[in-house]
Amino acid sequence: MPETSPRPAPPEPAADTRTGPLTGPRGARSVGIVGAGQLARMMLGPAIELDLTTIVLATDPAESAAAVAARVRPGRHDDEQAVRDLAADVEVITFDHEHVPTEILERIQREGTTAVRPGPAALVHAQDKLVMRERLSALGHPCPRWWRISTGDDLAAALETAGGRLVVKTPRGGYDAHGVRIIEQADQAEDWLAEHGELLAEELVPFTRELSAQVARRPGGEATAYPVVQSVQKDGVCYEVVAPAPGIDHSAQQRIQALALAIAEDLDVTGMLAVELFETPEGEVLVNELAMRPHNTGHWSMDGAVTGQFEQHLRAVADQPLGSTAPLAPTAVMVNLLGGTAEDLAPGAHAALAADPALKIHLYGKSVRPGRKIGHVTLIGEDAADLLARAHRAERLIVDGPESLTDPLTPGEPR
Amino acid sequence: MPETSPRPAPPEPAADTRTGPLTGPRGARSVGIVGAGQLARMMLGPAIELDLTTIVLATDPAESAAAVAARVRPGRHDDEQAVRDLAADVEVITFDHEHVPTEILERIQREGTTAVRPGPAALVHAQDKLVMRERLSALGHPCPRWWRISTGDDLAAALETAGGRLVVKTPRGGYDAHGVRIIEQADQAEDWLAEHGELLAEELVPFTRELSAQVARRPGGEATAYPVVQSVQKDGVCYEVVAPAPGIDHSAQQRIQALALAIAEDLDVTGMLAVELFETPEGEVLVNELAMRPHNTGHWSMDGAVTGQFEQHLRAVADQPLGSTAPLAPTAVMVNLLGGTAEDLAPGAHAALAADPALKIHLYGKSVRPGRKIGHVTLIGEDAADLLARAHRAERLIVDGPESLTDPLTPGEPR
Repeated sequence: MPETSPRPAPPEPAADTRTGPLTGPRGARSVGIVGAGQLARMMLGPAIELDLTTIVLATDPAESAAAVAARVRPGRHDDEQAVRDLAADVEVITFDHEHVPTEILERIQREGTTAVRPGPAALVHAQDKLVMRERLSALGHPCPRWWRISTGDDLAAALETAGGRLVVKTPRGGYDAHGVRIIEQADQAEDWLAEHGELLAEELVPFTRELSAQVARRPGGEATAYPVVQSVQKDGVCYEVVAPAPGIDHSAQQRIQALALAIAEDLDVTGMLAVELFETPEGEVLVNELAMRPHNTGHWSMDGAVTGQFEQHLRAVADQPLGSTAPLAPTAVMVNLLGGTAEDLAPGAHAALAADPALKIHLYGKSVRPGRKIGHVTLIGEDAADLLARAHRAERLIVDGPESLTDPLTPGEPR
Repeated sequence: MPETSPRPAPPEPAADTRTGPLTGPRGARSVGIVGAGQLARMMLGPAIELDLTTIVLATDPAESAAAVAARVRPGRHDDEQAVRDLAADVEVITFDHEHVPTEILERIQREGTTAVRPGPAALVHAQDKLVMRERLSALGHPCPRWWRISTGDDLAAALETAGGRLVVKTPRGGYDAHGVRIIEQADQAEDWLAEHGELLAEELVPFTRELSAQVARRPGGEATAYPVVQSVQKDGVCYEVVAPAPGIDHSAQQRIQALALAIAEDLDVTGMLAVELFETPEGEVLVNELAMRPHNTGHWSMDGAVTGQFEQHLRAVADQPLGSTAPLAPTAVMVNLLGGTAEDLAPGAHAALAADPALKIHLYGKSVRPGRKIGHVTLIGEDAADLLARAHRAERLIVDGPESLTDPLTPGEPR
């Protein structure tokens, strides 16, 4: 005999955490998305529900979003004519990634017929790590110690000051673990220095964990913050997120949300902003990276918050009122699916759904390569350890196939 | 200063309410949807996340789902070649509505290359009200008293037995209020009798309210039930839903869920089944109608349950394991947006989102006609009266425009 699931205890009524003016009588009804990766893909479902017309600019028709979007335009993100043609057909353009050249966006913005959100003056802080460090430092926001490196001598001096080890980053073009290197000798970054001219060097922060603070902001200044989450990287790639960050107290969370909102305001960000942070042993935070788009550390919100980050990004860039960021449960977890041994994800996904009816699977429709982000899973509930164990069991079934767990109905160890 | 929303109290861990075998190692990866209305449209987002390929058969490229689907095929649901061509390209076909001729589906099913879910032998009970009444009565499921009407004399006799009033229905082709008439004299249905040959006549049930019980069922028999909801009609069209039905006790809910699961099993339904019910003053229920697809009374689940009905329908017809039906809050409400005085819904939607950050709006991209279903809104929380007042305020703003409420920030009366 079937059982009705007992009614869960209530979420608190969603407090209105939005600050700033709720301006604008209408908002945009069409959004062009530059780039066709999984972030663009995950905007499509919410866009349908909001009846926002979207057009995706895709390099290849097989890209994650291009394969499932109703309106796809072929073209590269760095082809000015392609980006212009996209912009000509929509009220707003936004982004799947940070790699559109700033000059292209500045020219489109100057013409004034299509809004660019986030605008190029904001976006440059997510595109160029040197620009970001300089601006955040000037604004007094907490950063690791950092150095602008133009010569081998600069690097040697910074190495000495920092105690013999540095994180060196290419200012532009990096993502995930790409464009980041830890060095102990100046000649270990010679090739990059020759290639890029300038590098960013940072002290290695002895952090206790990584946090991420996401906010959404509209053009008129209305903004709202999501719960601060804990993220775990694996080989430099986001792998596991717990929302909210375990053990974080109310005042720490407020302080960090205020920091993220201040950065959004200071940089005039529109859309979603993710502020990736290091938490230090002293309980302080230092800004690691900025991303001005939906972010991997916010995927939990698709299933775990009243307004998922993809819907929120669209509402923000379309200048429509922002939605509640209230969580739907005390804890949400997200585990990335990184390409493993299974080439066909269907049997593992099937086994994972059979084992756990509460599991939410998001597949990106991408071909499998080792370590590549090909999807993610989420769970909501009470106990982070239990949720993570279940999410990792699902992850193993999906990325390595059902045969990878001899007893798929017994929770596996997180690997 | 922004506030973190206080953490809501926990939902109960999602109990596994699924019954029956969890069969099948893989499930289908492609689904053809016959019909391109809003039900097909709302399957598209979940299909993207599950990486299920969908193809929509649309009569007109401007139809609700056709306007936003990546893969659309032109063709009518009653054109055998069009349905066959769709079936040839997918592993499973399913439906946006009940109007595909049974014979077409039987022939596709007999060929055995594409699954038809729900199958024609099940679907006929949602297509033909006489067949439904006969079968449910034979199975012993509770129905209003009913009569098969072939002549005016049949109708006169039924009227006398029923006490002078009857509900008369065309066996096929009806939806919402179409094909339903209340009569007090036999000649009031003469035209329909001439047109249809046979009619269904039913007693007017003195019901206290209408309920709806939704279940999902896979081909192998795995099934799961959603909370039983209360629905309110307006001019014969679903207008307002509260989940779960206010005041319903656990045993009544279990009994009604068991009835819906039994009907799904008896009729071999695959996919979502909605059993619309009358609740009588004695606290019994009588089956009113059946629908074998996602149903208006289940729209709340998109935002109010772990697994929304559109995802669940796809999982069921693709023979993938079913998801948890656990609610995300003690109460969810849904209010339909029925075409009003506003032709452009954007300003009202904007005002409604500004007034209520927890509101979820779903717009169908359809042109506005008076009374036409053009979208719906949902809210989740604790207090049904509060949620309904907020949902109706949003409804008024959207369908009649922001100027319809002089003070849009003060909750309006439900109209």
